[in-house]
Amino acid sequence: MIDLEKITDPSFVKDLSMKELKELAFQIREFLIDNISKTGGHLSSNLGIVEITLAMYYVFDPEKDKFLFDVGHQSYVHKILTGRAKDFKTLRKLDGLSGYISKDESKYDIWESGHSSTSISAASGMIVAGEKDRVIAIIGDSSIMNGVALEGLNFLGQLKDKNPIIILNDNKMGISKSVGALTKTLQRIRGSKLYSKLKKFLNTITPTFLSGFVHQIKRGLKGFIQRDNIFEEMGFDYYGPYEGNNLKYCIKMMKKIKNSKEPIVIHFITKKGKGYLPSENDTEGDFHGVGPFDIETGIQYKNDDFKNYSKHVADFLCEKRKEEQFYVVTPAMKSGSMLNEFAKLYPNDFFDVGIAEEHAADMAAGIALLNKKVVLLFYATFAQRAYDMLLNDISRQNLKVIIGIDRAGIVGEDGATHQGIYDISMLSAMPNIKIFMPKDDIETIGLFNYAFNHLDSPIAIRYPRASFKIKSYDYKYECSPEWEIIKKGNKANVISYGPDVVRISNLDLDINVYNAKSIKPIDEIMLKNIFESNLLIIIVEQVISSGSLYDKILNFKEKNNYISKIYSLSFNEDTIIKHGKIDDVLDRYGFSDEKIKDFILDKIK
Amino acid sequence: MIDLEKITDPSFVKDLSMKELKELAFQIREFLIDNISKTGGHLSSNLGIVEITLAMYYVFDPEKDKFLFDVGHQSYVHKILTGRAKDFKTLRKLDGLSGYISKDESKYDIWESGHSSTSISAASGMIVAGEKDRVIAIIGDSSIMNGVALEGLNFLGQLKDKNPIIILNDNKMGISKSVGALTKTLQRIRGSKLYSKLKKFLNTITPTFLSGFVHQIKRGLKGFIQRDNIFEEMGFDYYGPYEGNNLKYCIKMMKKIKNSKEPIVIHFITKKGKGYLPSENDTEGDFHGVGPFDIETGIQYKNDDFKNYSKHVADFLCEKRKEEQFYVVTPAMKSGSMLNEFAKLYPNDFFDVGIAEEHAADMAAGIALLNKKVVLLFYATFAQRAYDMLLNDISRQNLKVIIGIDRAGIVGEDGATHQGIYDISMLSAMPNIKIFMPKDDIETIGLFNYAFNHLDSPIAIRYPRASFKIKSYDYKYECSPEWEIIKKGNKANVISYGPDVVRISNLDLDINVYNAKSIKPIDEIMLKNIFESNLLIIIVEQVISSGSLYDKILNFKEKNNYISKIYSLSFNEDTIIKHGKIDDVLDRYGFSDEKIKDFILDKIK
Repeated sequence: MIDLEKITDPSFVKDLSMKELKELAFQIREFLIDNISKTGGHLSSNLGIVEITLAMYYVFDPEKDKFLFDVGHQSYVHKILTGRAKDFKTLRKLDGLSGYISKDESKYDIWESGHSSTSISAASGMIVAGEKDRVIAIIGDSSIMNGVALEGLNFLGQLKDKNPIIILNDNKMGISKSVGALTKTLQRIRGSKLYSKLKKFLNTITPTFLSGFVHQIKRGLKGFIQRDNIFEEMGFDYYGPYEGNNLKYCIKMMKKIKNSKEPIVIHFITKKGKGYLPSENDTEGDFHGVGPFDIETGIQYKNDDFKNYSKHVADFLCEKRKEEQFYVVTPAMKSGSMLNEFAKLYPNDFFDVGIAEEHAADMAAGIALLNKKVVLLFYATFAQRAYDMLLNDISRQNLKVIIGIDRAGIVGEDGATHQGIYDISMLSAMPNIKIFMPKDDIETIGLFNYAFNHLDSPIAIRYPRASFKIKSYDYKYECSPEWEIIKKGNKANVISYGPDVVRISNLDLDINVYNAKSIKPIDEIMLKNIFESNLLIIIVEQVISSGSLYDKILNFKEKNNYISKIYSLSFNEDTIIKHGKIDDVLDRYGFSDEKIKDFILDKIK
Repeated sequence: MIDLEKITDPSFVKDLSMKELKELAFQIREFLIDNISKTGGHLSSNLGIVEITLAMYYVFDPEKDKFLFDVGHQSYVHKILTGRAKDFKTLRKLDGLSGYISKDESKYDIWESGHSSTSISAASGMIVAGEKDRVIAIIGDSSIMNGVALEGLNFLGQLKDKNPIIILNDNKMGISKSVGALTKTLQRIRGSKLYSKLKKFLNTITPTFLSGFVHQIKRGLKGFIQRDNIFEEMGFDYYGPYEGNNLKYCIKMMKKIKNSKEPIVIHFITKKGKGYLPSENDTEGDFHGVGPFDIETGIQYKNDDFKNYSKHVADFLCEKRKEEQFYVVTPAMKSGSMLNEFAKLYPNDFFDVGIAEEHAADMAAGIALLNKKVVLLFYATFAQRAYDMLLNDISRQNLKVIIGIDRAGIVGEDGATHQGIYDISMLSAMPNIKIFMPKDDIETIGLFNYAFNHLDSPIAIRYPRASFKIKSYDYKYECSPEWEIIKKGNKANVISYGPDVVRISNLDLDINVYNAKSIKPIDEIMLKNIFESNLLIIIVEQVISSGSLYDKILNFKEKNNYISKIYSLSFNEDTIIKHGKIDDVLDRYGFSDEKIKDFILDKIK
């Protein structure tokens, strides 16, 4: 037994026997299930990648070779092996262990991947810049189908006499289920039984020093029994598919390719959730990112009286679809944005295109080109991938797409790379597009209905990662995006949008509170009244300052020669907001009820 | 002889004999060469695509079928056939014919592609939304290697019982020369002689009604003599490669696939510049986008006493490289950014990665990860494709990349989709990154040297599409990005950046003119002095207003309770700036010397 919490450097792995390695794998799984059941986190993908990670540490040299984890949520095993098991109690908590790769945590964390699919391009850079040791990108079957990963493969595959390794961890799911033609390719590769058996046979009988020679024979053989695959098309030496949860096999195969002189893709099939039945049986992605749960039953602790905005919007779409036909397009956020029911009810109108944000946006544009209604849904942070399409293709062409911006504002545990704080800055620069945010569940329905019923431009509706108590809803309710005053007072005009409006109005303060449902365009009539009251103005918004509502109101003030002093509570551009429980993060960055109150009091004192 | 200028609708093409069609092709080439030699424009790609376009109009039904030109610069022949030959005299001029697809011009212009590689995704949207007629995307060999095109292929190839057609116009060059493994794939497909001959033979002897059957036979045959290709991997029925400048052949092959029931890629090899020798012989992309030229010699009219900023930066990089090693990465802008000489001198340090902006940015990030210096160069408009990488991967990780933003500001003839007016808005929201712009050629050297010598964060240096009189340069000159006053006066403080600073200081006005070399961060010490002078402030900048320098200065004013009135000359967010000669466009949108002067006079009167 190894005391996981006492690991300081990962070299001990090399000294273990196969039996000890297997015990370690078992122990790591127990550790992951036990810890994540308490803290929440990414479970299934980490259970799947245990053997691959152990084999990497056994075969390669982590002191010299560069491991680039594409999407850090598969890096928990790597974190344990590099001395961070002791910190798992603090996983995804404020000042605790990050759920992703973090250079601040460890010298073994090299590339903070943030969004998916960037590791191959980063590896390309390291290799052309002369990295002498092995550069190894570990990437999933869904991530490898994103545009930047495909661009990266296209570049890297042409390099001669370079030896990057791409470890393809294929759990046949991606975040929920990979889509697209390449998935079929992977299925075909997986399914080629004759070839697999032959290969297994050859691998079994062949000593490692002959493997290069045998690889040549196999290539010859394969010509007769299997089509070449896309990785070979792209210039890689392709090895696989291998059983990625068979430790002995993982080690053997990695040893075989270790000294190769050409770009390599080595393809392992793993079982997402391996070793924990509720997670193994999950086909919907419920155990991808998971909250605390009961280990016995696999049931997540949650309060059925509450639901979150993602589910609420998904419910609205199901209801709305009864009235009129429209399409929903999302890049791999079917499960995250709770669209499973819509997808089941209206399979012909629903498209989860996989991790392909750029394609999703332009496909929505194509739908709108035929004057059909379409809802393009992504998290605020992933919308960043489609900036140019949102600008050039949707907004500039004034295509009438409804854009659902999920997880806008502080997102909590996912941390720095996942905050939804740039979308307003992005979209504010674009022509034609409108940006709305509802203050609560009812207004969410109201603004979505407004968008559906008055769709004369692209309309983005953002909503936060937050929950509320379930009520019964009138799904036909429509509200205007015009601003409203929702509380009256005498000391200041406070303007905000989203649920912060409600929080602010509940603070015990003598202030006017305005609900700026429409962030672009601003409500100039209401603003005129606000300025003419000559009270000081305070704008509260969980976004980066550049391009914020504050900037728009400052512009309005300057143009119209108003004099009211304006204060802004937002994030300056150099702010990088860390992970943590959402309330802790709000507090740290000045957005808890208490801190907002202090901010306002300080200004009106 | 057809009078091209009298064409009103394209149906006449269907009634022409093969002889007449060939004459028409000849006539169109003459017309293109003659017109573009006078107006400038995109020559070589349009000469290459004459037969493909004619065949499309001959075989398909332009009244019903949807032609989506991926990158509209290959659409001149389409424009001629749809009744716009008479407008070619005004090509790329203000209020004249656009150089790209434009819905305002013609009902046959369906998808304003703007940046490359979006047509396949747009076609996907139209098809899932129930478009009954054929959707045909026409895309080049370089464009198809961009991330969004690959995502689009991945999606579209999986659709069953849908029949989109992708016409791959492969001129073996892309904008200059396609790069990457997929290029090799195309080369291999092109080069497979035995297969080509067999296929040609089969096609020649087979009547059209048997073509489906023969296609099956060929697939069988091909298994023995040629590997399957990437398009088949992605789910398409692949036809090709065919000679794309052989009109009879183009028509025959399009007829064959016309009634197919599956997604199709049909691959034509064309000769870029076909029919005009100087353009046929151009391997560097000089005839891609071309200014007016002498038809006899092919020599472009230009003044050798002048050079543009692209060339100037490229010259600087060549000189700097003598002093110290660094890398240059660009996505397909080798020729556009005049990097041919650098590439020739330092082939191991230069990477044109093709139209792959996302990959280029992350590859530069990977280079910086090894603490090597790297210059990432793209046009401002194409940087939009890499928003998420610039934000998440370069700026958030504070990787020390020098980012050259070419063609910043108004670009003139390329028009709406190519204006360099969003980069400051984009980058202003990002952490760590600095944004500079030099006012002239000497300061360009100065600021680049500053970036090289004080590289403690990502630094973006933007420069315009403009020319200046060549001087002799001290390539070691370094200047500080601190703001400077370059002219003194009494009526206003005018702040600007880039060459506009020089233009403003040459206006006969009694004003202070400040050169805001650093747009982010702003020079707070200088600004304090400016505000304390209590003169009104005027900020002039060729960018979209949201996130502009004006916004930053307004923020500074509000925070520090200054009172000077500030006026902004910039573009509001709903502005879409059309094409035209750069001086005409500047004038139309308020940025000619005269208009700037009027704007300032109006404020100080």
